[in-house]
Amino acid sequence: MEILKNKILTDGIVKSGEILKVDNFLNHQIDVTLLNEIGKEFKRRFNDIEVDKILTIESSGIAIAVIASQYFDNIPVVFAKKQESTNLDAQVYKTKVFSYTKNKEYNIMVSKRYISKGEKVLIIDDFLAKGGAVLGLYDILEQAGAELIGVGIVIEKSYQDGSVILKEKGVRVESLACIESLKNKMIRFK
Amino acid sequence: MEILKNKILTDGIVKSGEILKVDNFLNHQIDVTLLNEIGKEFKRRFNDIEVDKILTIESSGIAIAVIASQYFDNIPVVFAKKQESTNLDAQVYKTKVFSYTKNKEYNIMVSKRYISKGEKVLIIDDFLAKGGAVLGLYDILEQAGAELIGVGIVIEKSYQDGSVILKEKGVRVESLACIESLKNKMIRFK
Repeated sequence: MEILKNKILTDGIVKSGEILKVDNFLNHQIDVTLLNEIGKEFKRRFNDIEVDKILTIESSGIAIAVIASQYFDNIPVVFAKKQESTNLDAQVYKTKVFSYTKNKEYNIMVSKRYISKGEKVLIIDDFLAKGGAVLGLYDILEQAGAELIGVGIVIEKSYQDGSVILKEKGVRVESLACIESLKNKMIRFK
Repeated sequence: MEILKNKILTDGIVKSGEILKVDNFLNHQIDVTLLNEIGKEFKRRFNDIEVDKILTIESSGIAIAVIASQYFDNIPVVFAKKQESTNLDAQVYKTKVFSYTKNKEYNIMVSKRYISKGEKVLIIDDFLAKGGAVLGLYDILEQAGAELIGVGIVIEKSYQDGSVILKEKGVRVESLACIESLKNKMIRFK
């Protein structure tokens, strides 16, 4: 997706530790025009399948998911919440996610009311690196007996193994920009 | 806004402590069709003024703000981040917000890159009760020298004083559904 790659090249900032900051258009300030292009592209890529619901995770997945929903007949969006581990609400599906960026484990949860058995769910998120967040969302879908029909990612760090792990599990992953390397603070796409 | 009030009546749940849960369409699962109606209504109410940017706060403000932006010529959306108080980044505007719902104080921050002096900013959020979050966002705009041109709220708890405090400061507040009382777990609009 050229418009996205160009935006990453012009506005993305590579920090030490191979961290790519896209605060300027995706994660803090949001470019709504670009998000609409991203939503259209997800629809184009998943046009062959039926989707009942989009699942994402707070905070940075929310904007992407709701704009994308508009290209999937305004299907409901559910976002998993991050929470302290002390909450023991029986009415939620919950799982643990390890964040390598923040170097800590946290819980994510989705109310049992909002994911149902047999629902066809598309996961959408901003980044895919080692796959922690998406694997957590997948676990929640399995607990609910829902069907993961695909994963739509805006930026994939293809030099990390999240995408490979998901594909080995038979999950369809569509990433709109695949980064091969961030070495020497240079952004190189696959 | 009748469609919104009807949705609150049919899908809202009043919990003890006068807490209104709208998880089913606004805060956890998101009704994108309704959000588009909300966005249109914000535009109708603020149609007479120029807006450069929309400011909101994670997580529940994000979906509302990005969908609304589409009715304001896709202007950029910035969301304030909640963070631990240990971060001492000089590149951010930051302030403290007290959450009465969670009974704790937290910091919110916005990168200095994304709010500029003289910008005309519309604040959008899901709830207005005692006004903590909106007053925090207003403080950040004042630090930046930006102009608060109005506040758009989906659900106002009019029996609490947030709206009055803002109006006394000369701030224009447009709330799409104003709740007069949640006593005895009954939702009564103004």
